[in-house]
Amino acid sequence: MAMISGLRRVSCRSASSPASVPSLLLGMALSRHISTAFREERDTFGPILVPSDKLWGAQTQRSLQNFDIGGERERMPVQIIRSFGILKKCAAKVNMEYGLDPTIGKAIMQAAQEVAEGKLDDHFPLVIWQTGSGTQSNMNANEVIANRAAEILGHKRGEKIVHPNDHVNRAQSSNDTFPTVMHIAAAVEINSRFIPSLKQLHTSLHSKSVEFKDIVKIGRTHTQDATPLTLGQEFSGYTTQVKYGIDRVLDTLPRMYQLAQGGTAVGTGLNSKKGFDVKIATAVADETELPFITAENKFEALAAHDAFVEASGALNTVSVSLHKIANDIRLLGSGPRCGLGELILPENEPGSSIMPGKVNPTQCEALTMVCAQVMGNHTAITVGGLNGHFELNVYKPVIASNLLRSLRLLGDASSSFEKNCVSGIQANRERISKLLHESLMLVTSLNPKIGYDKAAAVAKKAHKEGTTLKNAALDLGVLTSEEFDELVVPEKMIGPSD
Amino acid sequence: MAMISGLRRVSCRSASSPASVPSLLLGMALSRHISTAFREERDTFGPILVPSDKLWGAQTQRSLQNFDIGGERERMPVQIIRSFGILKKCAAKVNMEYGLDPTIGKAIMQAAQEVAEGKLDDHFPLVIWQTGSGTQSNMNANEVIANRAAEILGHKRGEKIVHPNDHVNRAQSSNDTFPTVMHIAAAVEINSRFIPSLKQLHTSLHSKSVEFKDIVKIGRTHTQDATPLTLGQEFSGYTTQVKYGIDRVLDTLPRMYQLAQGGTAVGTGLNSKKGFDVKIATAVADETELPFITAENKFEALAAHDAFVEASGALNTVSVSLHKIANDIRLLGSGPRCGLGELILPENEPGSSIMPGKVNPTQCEALTMVCAQVMGNHTAITVGGLNGHFELNVYKPVIASNLLRSLRLLGDASSSFEKNCVSGIQANRERISKLLHESLMLVTSLNPKIGYDKAAAVAKKAHKEGTTLKNAALDLGVLTSEEFDELVVPEKMIGPSD
Amino acid sequence: MAMISGLRRVSCRSASSPASVPSLLLGMALSRHISTAFREERDTFGPILVPSDKLWGAQTQRSLQNFDIGGERERMPVQIIRSFGILKKCAAKVNMEYGLDPTIGKAIMQAAQEVAEGKLDDHFPLVIWQTGSGTQSNMNANEVIANRAAEILGHKRGEKIVHPNDHVNRAQSSNDTFPTVMHIAAAVEINSRFIPSLKQLHTSLHSKSVEFKDIVKIGRTHTQDATPLTLGQEFSGYTTQVKYGIDRVLDTLPRMYQLAQGGTAVGTGLNSKKGFDVKIATAVADETELPFITAENKFEALAAHDAFVEASGALNTVSVSLHKIANDIRLLGSGPRCGLGELILPENEPGSSIMPGKVNPTQCEALTMVCAQVMGNHTAITVGGLNGHFELNVYKPVIASNLLRSLRLLGDASSSFEKNCVSGIQANRERISKLLHESLMLVTSLNPKIGYDKAAAVAKKAHKEGTTLKNAALDLGVLTSEEFDELVVPEKMIGPSD
Amino acid sequence: MAMISGLRRVSCRSASSPASVPSLLLGMALSRHISTAFREERDTFGPILVPSDKLWGAQTQRSLQNFDIGGERERMPVQIIRSFGILKKCAAKVNMEYGLDPTIGKAIMQAAQEVAEGKLDDHFPLVIWQTGSGTQSNMNANEVIANRAAEILGHKRGEKIVHPNDHVNRAQSSNDTFPTVMHIAAAVEINSRFIPSLKQLHTSLHSKSVEFKDIVKIGRTHTQDATPLTLGQEFSGYTTQVKYGIDRVLDTLPRMYQLAQGGTAVGTGLNSKKGFDVKIATAVADETELPFITAENKFEALAAHDAFVEASGALNTVSVSLHKIANDIRLLGSGPRCGLGELILPENEPGSSIMPGKVNPTQCEALTMVCAQVMGNHTAITVGGLNGHFELNVYKPVIASNLLRSLRLLGDASSSFEKNCVSGIQANRERISKLLHESLMLVTSLNPKIGYDKAAAVAKKAHKEGTTLKNAALDLGVLTSEEFDELVVPEKMIGPSD
Repeated sequence: MAMISGLRRVSCRSASSPASVPSLLLGMALSRHISTAFREERDTFGPILVPSDKLWGAQTQRSLQNFDIGGERERMPVQIIRSFGILKKCAAKVNMEYGLDPTIGKAIMQAAQEVAEGKLDDHFPLVIWQTGSGTQSNMNANEVIANRAAEILGHKRGEKIVHPNDHVNRAQSSNDTFPTVMHIAAAVEINSRFIPSLKQLHTSLHSKSVEFKDIVKIGRTHTQDATPLTLGQEFSGYTTQVKYGIDRVLDTLPRMYQLAQGGTAVGTGLNSKKGFDVKIATAVADETELPFITAENKFEALAAHDAFVEASGALNTVSVSLHKIANDIRLLGSGPRCGLGELILPENEPGSSIMPGKVNPTQCEALTMVCAQVMGNHTAITVGGLNGHFELNVYKPVIASNLLRSLRLLGDASSSFEKNCVSGIQANRERISKLLHESLMLVTSLNPKIGYDKAAAVAKKAHKEGTTLKNAALDLGVLTSEEFDELVVPEKMIGPSD
Repeated sequence: MAMISGLRRVSCRSASSPASVPSLLLGMALSRHISTAFREERDTFGPILVPSDKLWGAQTQRSLQNFDIGGERERMPVQIIRSFGILKKCAAKVNMEYGLDPTIGKAIMQAAQEVAEGKLDDHFPLVIWQTGSGTQSNMNANEVIANRAAEILGHKRGEKIVHPNDHVNRAQSSNDTFPTVMHIAAAVEINSRFIPSLKQLHTSLHSKSVEFKDIVKIGRTHTQDATPLTLGQEFSGYTTQVKYGIDRVLDTLPRMYQLAQGGTAVGTGLNSKKGFDVKIATAVADETELPFITAENKFEALAAHDAFVEASGALNTVSVSLHKIANDIRLLGSGPRCGLGELILPENEPGSSIMPGKVNPTQCEALTMVCAQVMGNHTAITVGGLNGHFELNVYKPVIASNLLRSLRLLGDASSSFEKNCVSGIQANRERISKLLHESLMLVTSLNPKIGYDKAAAVAKKAHKEGTTLKNAALDLGVLTSEEFDELVVPEKMIGPSD
Repeated sequence: MAMISGLRRVSCRSASSPASVPSLLLGMALSRHISTAFREERDTFGPILVPSDKLWGAQTQRSLQNFDIGGERERMPVQIIRSFGILKKCAAKVNMEYGLDPTIGKAIMQAAQEVAEGKLDDHFPLVIWQTGSGTQSNMNANEVIANRAAEILGHKRGEKIVHPNDHVNRAQSSNDTFPTVMHIAAAVEINSRFIPSLKQLHTSLHSKSVEFKDIVKIGRTHTQDATPLTLGQEFSGYTTQVKYGIDRVLDTLPRMYQLAQGGTAVGTGLNSKKGFDVKIATAVADETELPFITAENKFEALAAHDAFVEASGALNTVSVSLHKIANDIRLLGSGPRCGLGELILPENEPGSSIMPGKVNPTQCEALTMVCAQVMGNHTAITVGGLNGHFELNVYKPVIASNLLRSLRLLGDASSSFEKNCVSGIQANRERISKLLHESLMLVTSLNPKIGYDKAAAVAKKAHKEGTTLKNAALDLGVLTSEEFDELVVPEKMIGPSD
Repeated sequence: MAMISGLRRVSCRSASSPASVPSLLLGMALSRHISTAFREERDTFGPILVPSDKLWGAQTQRSLQNFDIGGERERMPVQIIRSFGILKKCAAKVNMEYGLDPTIGKAIMQAAQEVAEGKLDDHFPLVIWQTGSGTQSNMNANEVIANRAAEILGHKRGEKIVHPNDHVNRAQSSNDTFPTVMHIAAAVEINSRFIPSLKQLHTSLHSKSVEFKDIVKIGRTHTQDATPLTLGQEFSGYTTQVKYGIDRVLDTLPRMYQLAQGGTAVGTGLNSKKGFDVKIATAVADETELPFITAENKFEALAAHDAFVEASGALNTVSVSLHKIANDIRLLGSGPRCGLGELILPENEPGSSIMPGKVNPTQCEALTMVCAQVMGNHTAITVGGLNGHFELNVYKPVIASNLLRSLRLLGDASSSFEKNCVSGIQANRERISKLLHESLMLVTSLNPKIGYDKAAAVAKKAHKEGTTLKNAALDLGVLTSEEFDELVVPEKMIGPSD
């Protein structure tokens, strides 16, 4: 019977939906999980039906119905969910020091550990677009952990033998827990995935820089022919960009490691005990093996998310760097006949069913698209960051989800680019040499010997007649063939002189 | 055996992955779908194993392995997939006019119809972060439709009785199909969901404007007290903003209705027949009941996505409007005791377990967060749009996915805001009246009678002593009580005089 | 004596300035204009010294001292100042219908005309960074016009024979005048300079498209060689982008032509007379010969600047288009020896003192930099637009100055690009032909005759051996020389077939 | 005669200008400086007329005519000009070590010093919108210094006794000098003006935090009433934001102190001597007393401007912080009767001619507008940064001018905000106390004594009846008056408990 009235409710909502799209709940109930029943959960607003096979409670269910925005793809990022697992485990541990019943505390720790490991991801259905404090996702975590802890203790879901507020959320407010999980999630992602990916790319670019150190090539400024450099030097510029990118992201960590927990509702710590903030930061640091500390000012930590705006700024800079690198590489690899053709990029998939030899620089494309996304995410984070009011910034979910997405995409795309493109780049030595020796700017080497005016005449003649500098020089009779060959040596043009 | 070698391959890739995250394929094969076998598909790069229960072919599988970026949440939007269904159905229909075997053509139409209806969504695993032309998603559509059409004709997957290129992709290039599905998806989304949601919001705001037309309240400029207006007038401003927002989005449609199809590889239409472009635009128009036409210049249609940048600009403006409205509403509803308190917002969920009467403006928060996201998406689209090269812009997937996400989120959030907030807003008439009558700026009405200087003296006395204008006026002896009451009538201050 | 105390005051302020930078006033008084005296002006805050040779009054002077931000380069744009001239002239004209003394009214009209013509620009010293309603610039206009009108009537500055508030600002509030001048300034700039510049660019690109219509060249997708098109077709894409850009900007005008005037302080029109709003819009329309009308909703017109956000969105799209075009042109003109070299760009200045023949695409660079600026200005306008509160958006100056700067820069840069680059572009026919005929993708033409497999073998052999398709085909013995020449005709590959 | 033909040339250009706006040159020649003559200067393009009273030469004049974009307000920032003075002085000093004639070298040093001191600002007429390498501004500096040095040595302008290239630009390329002056200008601005302004603001906010440490007030989350904190705690959050902002900007300096000089044309250092790069960085460090060093990788230093993107990211974060602070302050100061009214902001100018007591938060408005501009500038810098090609990023002037403008505006606005607003903020203790004691959330304190349910009943009754908590509690008979007064003590709710 519960099931029937539950479905009837759902049908009503669907009917009133403008585009007759099946609602989230309907989707879940019918097409996907084929729930056979609902159970009743309740909060201060009264009873509400929840799918029986789900661990969440009344507040989660209410949010699900009130925020039908974007569908399943818009769920709160899993890194946030799992960080809730870490945090709630640590909170239970510390709360036991402050009097939480150890039986309940240990069950909470076990349940929270399951959340941290991703085992309960399916029980976190809420979308990013909810209350701006993330309260509903905090309650989702509290409810799931409470129900799961109850099960661990041999009780049933919904019985509230373990209470989501009194036991799991004890001494916490959404207003300090959500920024805390934001920081945990970002710092873990930076350390475990993002920096390693950038380092891998850095290593690979550096290897190429060494591999190509003796290949002299034409330089290009304003996209126009310029004086020569080595291909290794060109790649050393890319390598340095990535190296500094790593530094830039690491430089933001001191503020990212500061945790808001202990500030409770407005930053004062009301309803928590003295020392709780330090203990919980220590517990999180132990759990994650990262140097988290308690925030020196909890008011700042709740009311602003400047640390996220700052980190996003670092990612924006990294995106600018990677876009430059990937764009250069695709242009240097353009061709095979009608482009620059200096680099040979790995072929990973058919470029065209018509033309053999066409290699599309698809890894460059994926990476540059990711860079565009990260720049966009940065704008979203900036707008979210600037609009806090008083004691609480209520753009937390949009800020958190954008930074985490930027980290994931930029890390993954760097890895993919490194593995499927950079590591396999070869120099087209023949083409590079041909372009270098056709170039008119080598005339620069003649200046000391024949003077600027004659050198200019040589270059102009070569340009006008479409011939080589050497031919032009010999035709003008300003040099012998031997003299020319002795003077025009690109290899001597790649550094300052003694 | 195929399965085993398939898994071995997968394991190798996972092992080399920096963060030891299970690869997409591994995830699919083991934890989710529990495939029991693979079949072999092939393209010009040779054979490759594909999960047997999937309709996709070799090129899709290759992309899946080469672009391990972001995981399942980053899949190409379903609106793109379903628009491929529409387009491929229309292409088969038109191609039959140009000689495609009707048996095959009809099977393709049937299979494509299933894609259009969303029945085959699970067979489109590719992420946004692939080749920038969307070629791999086009091939995904071709492969799935070919295999499904083969099944419809009684054949097996992978047999290529219906060929993904020769039959399904016939007379098409990724370079014209992908921009075509971008335009179809956006135009359908705008018409079927986005505009209806905005209209619903407009209607609701207008109703409130009428409902509140006689409630005179204090105006606020620079956030400071100013001369009065009616609450209905205030809401009429919001209503007008939404009305113009609808106009702004509709104004972009003439360029959105232009389809690139028929341009093929570079815009020339090579390998298509004369008239194909017009016929296919007509077919899409018939299928969608929207006034699509063939693009007047196919070179522009492939090389640039200005139509998307333009549409995103319109959404950016709508976001600016909605942010203003939602932010005003939460501030006007702030309180209940220590804020402005002029509006009573619907209570949809517990605001706090501690304090009854606290209603958090969560719908405003969800909407303003969505606005921040749309502004960010606009930056991503702008960066993608400005970086096209020569005959092809290769930021198509990032541009498409951001616009579609903006449309979906902004439409859904507008609906949610309308349904769960605006429609239930009540005026707190008592509070509004109290503030209005305490206000000092009503002194303005005294100017004609007692002159600016005396009026100023009244106001200054009232401000300094914290008393009412009337008390101050009576104390100063400049007016009688009756005179004051006759002159100070806020209801006469809400329009120009005769 | 007045001078001395004036300077003393200034010195005090300078001394307390952190970087000991001379204050605006000090700069003006001493180093630039060498004022020899000050006169006293007063407002409700009391007396204040103003340079004698300046027409401004007390409120302007106060703003100058309170907002020492950015220096002279940050002054309110002249288009705003001159639009104040237009508006105040029209206001005086209409106010005479409503009882303003004609002697005073006519003097105001004459003084305002001088402001409109730019004759009094030096009397508008205020910076953008002042009150967010632009009140101080409105008062600057009122004060200058009042003092100048007084002079016209034979009186002295500061006498207030013509009163800045009672006479010049009559029936107006800053809150409706500033948005009105914003709209006037933008609409005039769009019509008189911006659209003509874009049209000139459109015409020039179209001419090139016609001039180059028979030059067949290699196409490039993914920056890689693709099937051919004509250079005229390539330029037709650019032409279409600019054409649509013009449409996009024109589409925003219906909302730009709406004037806020008549809304006064909060949109209600308090203190104005019925009909004033319509009359003044008509007067402005007559004066500017543009179809201005009164805003249908004055509350929206004061509280939001969505019309500016929308117009900026259109400029953002135009920037995306122009960036694409200019970037293509510099890449197509890259070389002279080691780039693509298909276009010959005009030489306007020495590229390098070393290498003759180096032409830097400097006009492309100036234009693409302007595009970057316009995108940045768009973000500033968006942030300003979204942060309005209640009855007034107080980011008016930042919104106005950014849009006007975008219009000016984009218009000027388009003109400069057209005049100094596009109009002089020549095709390097020899280079274009060479690249075209070296390209491997012409093999596509052989498919119908010898089949895909043999054609592929030809292309692969040519690619591997670095030879021509023809040589490869003859070597493989699949065609005769005559057959090859008959089949491989790029000119037949630039459109759909019959 | 020279003058006449010069003007004729100008007239021709003006005539062809679309909006018949006087050209820059015309403006200078006629309306402003009333030059009476021109002299002839020449470069490799031939002779050209230059105003006789100007020190610039042929290349500057050519740029002036080729880039008629935006007018005088768009000139290259003076910080760039003055940094050219510093750099050219140091270059001459180092070049003398490498053989530059000391007579010429010393004259160059003296002339360059005049540029560094701003004495020759009027001789730098070029706009930002020129070649993207800044070459023309580098040549402007070379030409002005050469002509001025010649004068110092008793020669005439244009004689080239001191040669702009051979002597002043010796061993330098625009490609390394322009990024060098970018870094010098930014680092000097950060250290001399920006950081001091932020520190001043930090000090002032901290003082207020101390001053207000005992004022207990209502907290607000979601803009709704929440638990109390002190006004000092609230300001401590702002203080911390500014403190971290200073750290964020300082953290970017290690990469800003790296100078490109010595990289010459493409980063290799061709035409410079070994050690030149280190010596010149040392000379600049000595001259500026800032720890500049030579860039560890010159290829990165020319081809990318990530250091500027990074610094802009830090300023973006600071803007987000300051926007939050200024917006809070204006809302907390809203009123005087119908807003929150907790803060009394200084009155700096008349708010309205009608209503005494109205104080507009104009300093907050100026600052928040500046923040919007800085966010916009950040987008412009990002777009410029991501579009470098090969060995040279050619968006240098747009990148440089935006960062310098952001630094100047944000520094000045912070100073102005501090001086004219923050330092004078007073707490409205009466209002704060009234709101605090009316608040319903104080009920929280009753929980331990009477339990959650009874406390909730008290709060609900008070809310419903519009009465105080105490009245409600007494009415319900759950507490005595004495008990209530003992329990409900906001001062005990502002920290964690023991």
